[in-house]
Amino acid sequence: MPCLSAEQLGKLAIRDEDELSADLIEAQFQLREGRGSIKGKSVLILISGIELAGKGEAVQQLREWVDPRYLMVKAEVPHPLTQSQPFWQPYAGFIPAEGQMKLLFGNWYSDLLATAMHVSEPINTEQFKDYVQNMREFELDLQANHVHVVKIWFDLSWKALQKRLDKLDPSVQKWQQLHGLDWRSQKQYDTLQKLRSHFTDDWICIDGEDEERRDQQFAQVVLSALKQPLSEITPDAITGPWKKSKIPETLTQFDDEVLAEDDYKDQLKALSKKVAKAMRQDERNVVIVFEGMDAAGKGGAIKRIIKKLDPREYDIYTIGAPEKYELRRPYLWRFWTKLPKNGDITIFDRSWYGRVLVERLEGFAKPFEWKRAYDEINRFEQDLMDNQTVLIKFWLAIDKDEQEKRFKAREVTPHKRFKITDEDWRNREKWDEYLQAAADMFEHTSTDCAPWHIVATNDKNSARIAVLEHILERLKASK
Amino acid sequence: MPCLSAEQLGKLAIRDEDELSADLIEAQFQLREGRGSIKGKSVLILISGIELAGKGEAVQQLREWVDPRYLMVKAEVPHPLTQSQPFWQPYAGFIPAEGQMKLLFGNWYSDLLATAMHVSEPINTEQFKDYVQNMREFELDLQANHVHVVKIWFDLSWKALQKRLDKLDPSVQKWQQLHGLDWRSQKQYDTLQKLRSHFTDDWICIDGEDEERRDQQFAQVVLSALKQPLSEITPDAITGPWKKSKIPETLTQFDDEVLAEDDYKDQLKALSKKVAKAMRQDERNVVIVFEGMDAAGKGGAIKRIIKKLDPREYDIYTIGAPEKYELRRPYLWRFWTKLPKNGDITIFDRSWYGRVLVERLEGFAKPFEWKRAYDEINRFEQDLMDNQTVLIKFWLAIDKDEQEKRFKAREVTPHKRFKITDEDWRNREKWDEYLQAAADMFEHTSTDCAPWHIVATNDKNSARIAVLEHILERLKASK
Repeated sequence: MPCLSAEQLGKLAIRDEDELSADLIEAQFQLREGRGSIKGKSVLILISGIELAGKGEAVQQLREWVDPRYLMVKAEVPHPLTQSQPFWQPYAGFIPAEGQMKLLFGNWYSDLLATAMHVSEPINTEQFKDYVQNMREFELDLQANHVHVVKIWFDLSWKALQKRLDKLDPSVQKWQQLHGLDWRSQKQYDTLQKLRSHFTDDWICIDGEDEERRDQQFAQVVLSALKQPLSEITPDAITGPWKKSKIPETLTQFDDEVLAEDDYKDQLKALSKKVAKAMRQDERNVVIVFEGMDAAGKGGAIKRIIKKLDPREYDIYTIGAPEKYELRRPYLWRFWTKLPKNGDITIFDRSWYGRVLVERLEGFAKPFEWKRAYDEINRFEQDLMDNQTVLIKFWLAIDKDEQEKRFKAREVTPHKRFKITDEDWRNREKWDEYLQAAADMFEHTSTDCAPWHIVATNDKNSARIAVLEHILERLKASK
Repeated sequence: MPCLSAEQLGKLAIRDEDELSADLIEAQFQLREGRGSIKGKSVLILISGIELAGKGEAVQQLREWVDPRYLMVKAEVPHPLTQSQPFWQPYAGFIPAEGQMKLLFGNWYSDLLATAMHVSEPINTEQFKDYVQNMREFELDLQANHVHVVKIWFDLSWKALQKRLDKLDPSVQKWQQLHGLDWRSQKQYDTLQKLRSHFTDDWICIDGEDEERRDQQFAQVVLSALKQPLSEITPDAITGPWKKSKIPETLTQFDDEVLAEDDYKDQLKALSKKVAKAMRQDERNVVIVFEGMDAAGKGGAIKRIIKKLDPREYDIYTIGAPEKYELRRPYLWRFWTKLPKNGDITIFDRSWYGRVLVERLEGFAKPFEWKRAYDEINRFEQDLMDNQTVLIKFWLAIDKDEQEKRFKAREVTPHKRFKITDEDWRNREKWDEYLQAAADMFEHTSTDCAPWHIVATNDKNSARIAVLEHILERLKASK
């Protein structure tokens, strides 16, 4: 792992403590002030390293120099990487909001190291490297979304470690067990260092032997992270003209076949039972996403999916404009906390695809933001699917005339009045742009494991049946 | 338990399904529309009852009639009441925001019943009644804060239960184990019914035998809850003139004794070690609250408390104006999610006392709101202290002239500039009103277990020492 070289870190002169402290406090203030502006970012510091290298002491010293109220520190117990959830999921709650600085002792790397060192079937080197790569990509996505990630490894030589173990005060042993490792075993020490060598080269390595130098280096690294402009941490923007995808015929051509009411009822009854049974028997999480034009019948389709389920077996989330506190975090963040666990079912009525639909068309996401969102979303979905989740995505397609008919019907039906607003009529004016955005979305996010199902909904009955059939088929196929 | 009598519930005629559904959807819409207005409230539905009485089925039917996207359903596994956390803590995340309707299958009552029926040392009747009383008070506090709580018991006679068990389809057994009880044991059935008889009389009891009637009654109860105006659910306001408390001398008279720098350093070194050790050895949670005039030295005092602690052992929260999403919930809600667990330490730089200080003086809380807040806060703190938490509250007192001196010094010190804003000068104009609010606060919330410590801070050194001494003393005294 190519750390900042000893030379480079060595160049950091020991600074006057009061001046360093004043600079840190000023930088903290600037970070908070930048909130909501184009300079707005947050800082996430991941800490790992050899036991007794002085992680805790360095952070303690940092907290004396900064305003401690604005440095949040979290120490989680390790979460072994078991493929029951993506590595980032336990940490979703700790991702800092714009203007915040957070420091994580326990983090996805300590989980990875703990998993590699501990579990009965340890992961092999290739898997380890895959995880590291995956983590790096996740961090780049964080950075593109204004979360500046800094990773610091506190190192200590074998000899220095043994010396410190000799001198150990038994009253501070509380933290020795952090990785539950035997630090007297050179073999274990070497294994850990070997694993660590597979880390990506954006880690900063601080030697823990000289305590004053260690604390100074750490504080100065943090200071430079606080001060680094957002533009410098953001991955390269995607530039060049945007290549529009062809609009699929299924979005614009509809046949007029209608499923008769009696046939519909029979099919619905049988299918909704089958779907409930299949979802219940499937031990994986099921995530179902609905997108589509207004009035295309998302609500009605959802009602039929849950018909034979117990209300304790599923969650439904209706996704609207993000709240202010959600806007201060990566746009995917508000979905990280809504994902199912333990084989449950979660239905999203609109979803993260808002990034490349409404946010793109209304200008809430800048071009370089929505352009890179396709890949971000693919990575996010891949992480879910790699961790025991079936993802089923629907686009409910409707004819422009049929939409107008439904809008007008809503306006005169008392309990449907609220379903139609001026905004719906405004969105309708951008019909063609929405079709184009949908086409681009299919092109870039319809993957083998998570294809888009485009369902024509001019006839509501056959649309609902088609949705249920697709779910059944996907549950079977992806086993 | 005096439920709605059979007669009263019986009077609810079976309604036309489409009309009932339209009314429910309209009421859901009105609930969402009321958000942020004086009519704004949320609805929290707690469900309990006999197994197979049809809780799940009734909720499923409700979800067919309402817009399912705006009825959130949660089913938690039981949390035995172990006094490691207040009964409401596991549910803090589920308290609905204004405009929302949530339904909890697992809730504090199912926890209470599970605890009474299951654990090796079951709680006795008196304890059970105390819990019920405590829960009722908590719910009244929720209602005063715009959360309309509705509690529904689905009942089933012993005979009807046995009949349903006979007919049970093995494929739906998933939910039978909800309370892990043996529903074939009449003794257990009777014990449960006996415990339930101690519930307060605001429960609504629905008989589960007639399925159509059950679903209709449930839906109509929900409809009436949705439509009930906020004024009808709010407990009586505290009226009459407010009796001002006497302002304690400690808030206005200061001696000029100064702790010399050398003495201070010696004492600080010894004390901060002792405090760290005492907190570390104490297995309870420690919550430390700081209030006081601006520039009274809260930040400085906090720095000295954490001096010898590992940064992984504590959290610091700086409390400012609530965010919009926090304003939509009870004002205590944003603290429920910040409480320590597992013997950790949490320091609040300003706290829930904002309700009776800044919110009172700036008019963010109406008179009947801040007047009832004292009791609400006392109940909240009592819940913490009953559940292995030590609560230590400080008011840092400062002279008005000394404050001016510090404000002016801040304005010319680069890294302290941000600590002084126009708002601070504005607050200073209300000096006497703040003193009065502080005096009222001491009078109403200084309890035996959680007294206020008023610390004079004109001399920063002696103030910091005094804070540490109080902490040490309180940790010892409250063991």
